[in-house]
Amino acid sequence: MRLVEIFGANVRRVRLQRKMTLEALAAEADLAYSYMGGIERGQRNPSLSVVERIAQVLETDPQTLMLERSRD
Amino acid sequence: MRLVEIFGANVRRVRLQRKMTLEALAAEADLAYSYMGGIERGQRNPSLSVVERIAQVLETDPQTLMLERSRD
Repeated sequence: MRLVEIFGANVRRVRLQRKMTLEALAAEADLAYSYMGGIERGQRNPSLSVVERIAQVLETDPQTLMLERSRD
Repeated sequence: MRLVEIFGANVRRVRLQRKMTLEALAAEADLAYSYMGGIERGQRNPSLSVVERIAQVLETDPQTLMLERSRD
């Protein structure tokens, strides 16, 4: 899997663990809803600053979101 | 430290461990020399696809390059 796909799948999994909607994550990370959905599907190529914001909202570490199967 | 700074410092450290020049890393990752230098100084905000290419050239994992003090 490409890194954007690994990242997107991890974001989605952690978000669901946090019982957070895609809308809420997008709003808190200050990203457009459609862009946030594209990230989760591995169809966008976010920058490190966007990765950092998403990790902060999800209360996890950027590196955790890069693991092929990340820890919680 | 911001994630771009952590990433840049790790790239530089691992590159030097590999005894690779900045020029060689830039060329192998297909990035402009000045852009690659800016990444190492934490002054650029690379996308995940760029992160992935740099990690591949350095023969390491993207997540290793995200750690506040990464393993080798």
